[in-house]
Amino acid sequence: MSTQKKLMSTQEVADRLVSLCREGKVIDAGEELYGDDIVSHESEPSPTLLLKGKKDVRTKGNQFAEMIEAHHGGKISDPQVAGDYFTVAWSMDVTMKGQGRSMMNEIAVYKVQDGKIVEEWCHY
Amino acid sequence: MSTQKKLMSTQEVADRLVSLCREGKVIDAGEELYGDDIVSHESEPSPTLLLKGKKDVRTKGNQFAEMIEAHHGGKISDPQVAGDYFTVAWSMDVTMKGQGRSMMNEIAVYKVQDGKIVEEWCHY
Repeated sequence: MSTQKKLMSTQEVADRLVSLCREGKVIDAGEELYGDDIVSHESEPSPTLLLKGKKDVRTKGNQFAEMIEAHHGGKISDPQVAGDYFTVAWSMDVTMKGQGRSMMNEIAVYKVQDGKIVEEWCHY
Repeated sequence: MSTQKKLMSTQEVADRLVSLCREGKVIDAGEELYGDDIVSHESEPSPTLLLKGKKDVRTKGNQFAEMIEAHHGGKISDPQVAGDYFTVAWSMDVTMKGQGRSMMNEIAVYKVQDGKIVEEWCHY
C-alpha cells in the first residue's frame, strides 16, 4: 500500500493556512506548511529582514507570539491565489508587551512549490 | 476658492487602480496613482529587480505592453487592504511576441502614502 500523498495545490495550501490561522494555530500552520528551506522576507523596520530555514522562521514566530500581551480581535482575509503565489491580508488588534494596544495590519505573500510554502514576504 | 483635494485613502487608491486596470488603462493607472518617487520591486528572473522613479517604471510598463502580441482574457481580483498596503491578484491570458500563448499570474502588493502608491512588489 502506498503511503504517498498527493501534493497540495497552491489553493489547498492557501486554504489550509488561513483555516489554521483563523483557529489561532499560527505556529502549527508553519510546522505543517513551510518547506524546510523556507525563505522569509520582512520589511523595514523589522530587525530580521531575511531569514532562511524552518527553524529560524519558527523562532521568529515564537518570539513574536511571546511579545503579545493580549489579543483583542482581528481578521484574516480569504486567500487570493495567482499561479504559485497566494496572498492573505491580516488585521490584528493586539496589546504588545510594553507598547500598548494597536491595530497591526499586514499583507503576506506566499510562494508554493511541491505543496509547501518555500518563500514568504511580509509587508506591514 | 481652494483647489486642494482630499487625499485618497488606501481603499480608494486600491479601488481606483483595479477599476482603471479592468478597463485596460494600466498605464493611465500608473500616471494617476504612482508617486513621483515610486519604488518598484520585481522577482527573479526579471531583468529589472528594482526601479525607482515614475519615469523608469512607466518605461518598464510600456516595454511590457509592447511585448504583448494578443490579449485573450484575464482577471483582476478585488483588492485586499491592510493598513497602508493593498494587494491585487492578476491572471492574464496573453500571447507574448516570440514566446507563444501562456497564462501569466502575478500578485502585486502596493504601499500607499499621502494618497499615492509609493512602493510596489510584483510576485510572479
